[in-house]
This record gives sequence, C-alpha cells and structure tokens, in this order.
Amino acid sequence: MGRIAYVNGRYVPHDRAQVHIEDRGYQFADGVYEVIAVHKGMLVDADPHLDRLDRSLRELRIDQPMSRRALMAVIRELLRRNGIRQGIVYMQVTRGVARRDHPFPKVSVPALVMTASRKPPPDLSVLETGKKAVTVPDIRWGRCDIKTVGLLPNVLAKQHARTSGAYEAWMVDAQGNVTEGSSTNAWIVTREGQLVTRPTGNEILSGITRASVMDLVKREGIDFVERPFTAEEAKQAREAFITSATSYVLPIVQIDDAVIGNGKPGTIARTLLQAYLAHMEGAGASR
Amino acid sequence: MGRIAYVNGRYVPHDRAQVHIEDRGYQFADGVYEVIAVHKGMLVDADPHLDRLDRSLRELRIDQPMSRRALMAVIRELLRRNGIRQGIVYMQVTRGVARRDHPFPKVSVPALVMTASRKPPPDLSVLETGKKAVTVPDIRWGRCDIKTVGLLPNVLAKQHARTSGAYEAWMVDAQGNVTEGSSTNAWIVTREGQLVTRPTGNEILSGITRASVMDLVKREGIDFVERPFTAEEAKQAREAFITSATSYVLPIVQIDDAVIGNGKPGTIARTLLQAYLAHMEGAGASR
Repeated sequence: MGRIAYVNGRYVPHDRAQVHIEDRGYQFADGVYEVIAVHKGMLVDADPHLDRLDRSLRELRIDQPMSRRALMAVIRELLRRNGIRQGIVYMQVTRGVARRDHPFPKVSVPALVMTASRKPPPDLSVLETGKKAVTVPDIRWGRCDIKTVGLLPNVLAKQHARTSGAYEAWMVDAQGNVTEGSSTNAWIVTREGQLVTRPTGNEILSGITRASVMDLVKREGIDFVERPFTAEEAKQAREAFITSATSYVLPIVQIDDAVIGNGKPGTIARTLLQAYLAHMEGAGASR
Repeated sequence: MGRIAYVNGRYVPHDRAQVHIEDRGYQFADGVYEVIAVHKGMLVDADPHLDRLDRSLRELRIDQPMSRRALMAVIRELLRRNGIRQGIVYMQVTRGVARRDHPFPKVSVPALVMTASRKPPPDLSVLETGKKAVTVPDIRWGRCDIKTVGLLPNVLAKQHARTSGAYEAWMVDAQGNVTEGSSTNAWIVTREGQLVTRPTGNEILSGITRASVMDLVKREGIDFVERPFTAEEAKQAREAFITSATSYVLPIVQIDDAVIGNGKPGTIARTLLQAYLAHMEGAGASR
C-alpha cells in the first residue's frame, strides 16, 4: 500500500501530494503546524495539540479550516489509510492561496495538509547512553510561542548540532539564558537537585509534552521551579534533558564540551520518561 | 493566453503550478527569493538581484538550481510566454523536497519556481500625494540580510499598516532605530537637509534599489550619510521615502500621527524618483 496524504479535502498518493506555488505557506511562511504522536494506535495528547493549533491560528488571524470533530475524523482516516499504529501525524494549516502580496488577502480559504508517518516506538536504550547538545545563539523572531512553519532558524540550529555530532541545539538568548532546543523544550536538574525549565512566554513554544511532563513532575513530588537558566548553569547541572512529542523525555549527557553529571542519564530523567510512557498509554491517549 | 508559471523545469499553466507538500519551502521556510522589475520590456538591475540570490543561497548552503545563464534564459522565456513588458518576475529557490526532518537532507535537489506578473508602469501621481507609514516593533530574526521566504513578521507588519490606513510599516529595533520597511528600505532627509539611510548589516536587507539609488545620490551630489536613525528623528524629518524594486522611490508624507515636512513629497525624493526612472531605462536595464 502506498503512502497517502491529505491535501485540502482529498486523500492523495503521497508522491502526488501538492499545493499551489502561491499557497502563502510557500511564499510567506504564513502558516502553522502540529505534530501528534501515535502510540499503540492511540493519539497522544490530541486535545492539547489541537488547542494549541487553534491558538496559533487565532494569533495569526487564520480561520480554522474545519471543526475539531472534522479534523479528528481526517486524522483517524489518514492513520487508517496508512495503516499506522506507531508514528506521527503532521498537520499544517496556512492562510491559503492568493496572488502574492504581503497583507492578508481579502478572501482566502485556509489550506490544510496532513501526513502520517510510521516511526518506531520509544527507544529505551537512550536511557543507557543519552544524547549530546550544543549551544547556539537564539536568533529567532519575537513570537516563538506561535508554532509557525517559519522554521529556518531552527533548521540552521539543528544542522549545526548535527555537524557538531550532537542531537540537539540549545538556543541561548542575549542574556545568556537557554530558551529551548531547536525542536524540543530544555530542562535541567541543578546541583542542588531542583528541576528547572524556562517559563513560557513569547520566547519559547508552550510544549504539549512539556506540560504533560510538568503534570507528572507534580505527581511524582519532584522539587521543581519554572525560571530561566543560563547555559553556564546547564553545563554545571546534575542532569539535563529535552522533551517533545517525538523525543518524549530524552536525557542530555553533554552540552558543548561539558559532561553533565557522571555522563550518564540521570534519575529524574529516567523517572519522568517512565512516567511519560505510562501517560502515553493512559491519560494522554485518545482514539 | 492563460498565465504560465515555471516550476522545476517545466512551463505550466499558473492555476496548475504546484510543488510537493514536503518541499522544504512549505514546511520550513527553507528557501529564498528575488523580485525583479520589468520596465519597457527590460529587466531592471538583473545582475545585482541575481548576485544577491546567489549570496542568499550560499548563506543557507543551498545549491544553485542552475547557472546564471540558464536562469536568465528561463526568466526571458517566462516573460515571453506571458507577453510581459511591464511588471515583475518573482523567483523562489528552496532546498527542495525531502522527508520532513529539520537538518539539511543528505540529498536534495533545489526547487526553482518562477512567476511573471503584469504591473502598471510607475504611477507618478504619488509625487503629488505621497503615502503614510506606521511604526511597529521589529520582531524579526537575526539574519534579515538573507532574503528568505520566512516573511510572516513582514506580513503581520504590512497587515498592521493596511488596517491603520498606511502603505508601509517601518520597523523599529530595541534601540528605537528604524531598521527598514516591511518590504522596502527606509530613508529620511533630516531637518538640516542631510539624506540618511541605515547601513546594511544582519538587521536589514541589502536592497538592490537602495544600492542603485545610493549611486544616484552620489551622482546628484546630495549630502548623504549611512547611519541609524530613530523613529523620533524620522517624525521630525524634512522628507521621508522608501525604496524597493516594485515601489521605486516612494515619498512618505506621514509617519504615525506625524506629518513629514509640509505633508507633500519633498524635493530630494522627487529628484531621486526621476533619476531612478532614468536608471530603469538606462544603466539598470538589461534584456
């Protein structure tokens, strides 16, 4: 069975899934997206992801392409047609097609594109090894809270990570504080054992996995504070990890040249990954 | 005759001009563009525009889609097929199609898309009336010198201008200095009569029309300096204007609530527009 994509009302073979060259997503990055994990046939945190999609659209004054109920039906149908029980759903909404001109077009129909991909289940061997991060200056725009497709700075940061032999790039603002990873939220456990992540604001994406992990942190009774932290503090930390819908809770054992803790994934990251895996199969799961 | 677009090697009817949904321009804004004016059948400043395209591609490490000679042949053929002697050519190059993943794909073929549009010749009645600008905070990323399709902040600024009854938005940085317009460069003539525009750097696009006008400024012997200027200084200015490939030299007679000079287009803007029109038909023109 060939891969199937959803494009503006039609289910089409993936290799023929196309949008018009004057779709404003292509010419202006005038659009937003979401990625939802599929685990054991269930969507993970579907409602919060779709709530955030609604918010991104509202912030950009793009109309919703369809109701929540209809959107969920498309997601389910796309997963069914692709036979995917483990993987991700990617959805993108743009302001639609209009003759190229910067201001919002007077009339445009939002475009909705969706793909589904197979992806292996969480690889727990990462708990033995962890991953490396590098720091880069955060040069992104002032509204990183909106999940737009304007991802070029993130692409450049991630590419820098890869050419540096690292998995992720942690972006550092003008004050020396870590904002977030190029496609993940950043967390540390201080030398005193307190878990820290940066508060939400215009500077970072309000991660859905971040919020779910935060709930688990409270449930586990882990000492936790939301506050900015510097790259220097991160390098001295006892633990570090990242969260995202596709990375789950992923331990970071080196930042630039600094080995974190004893160079092995730490206790809190391990605890939270296990708790998150349970969440994926429990409270976070929806058909 | 229907409109024809160029898409990755083919001339196609405009309404069927499409790119794949996993073109990285659509999912990551991982691409760049240029707009070249066509005046009386000639391209205006074609070489500097294509030089800047090359630079943008180099900065993002995207391969050139074809040689300069081949690109010029496509431009000419597209103009011919669309019968355009007055208008613009828009060209966009992206990193191409690849399975969605932030880092550069190991293998990808750059995508090249081009459209040509009819546009009336310069409207000299603007010399009687001028246009209004509004100021907005500059919230763009740190590499505005690269002409990427990541234009959402520019779109939002331009939309704000339009809903404010203005033609352009002038973006103001954290220091209070004007960077540039949402799709134009910004110039003022101080109360002392000196022409001022901001120096190039990562904060603004190195405008091709800006550079051409700068040459004309020297030729006309106008007192001129490249330095940052604040929004406040602009509001007190004797004259203000914007430049771009499609706006040419366009007088600004009001910034926010402040009337500029006597509220009419000024002498220097008028002189430079006339000089630029001659340039379009003279030194700047190429077949």
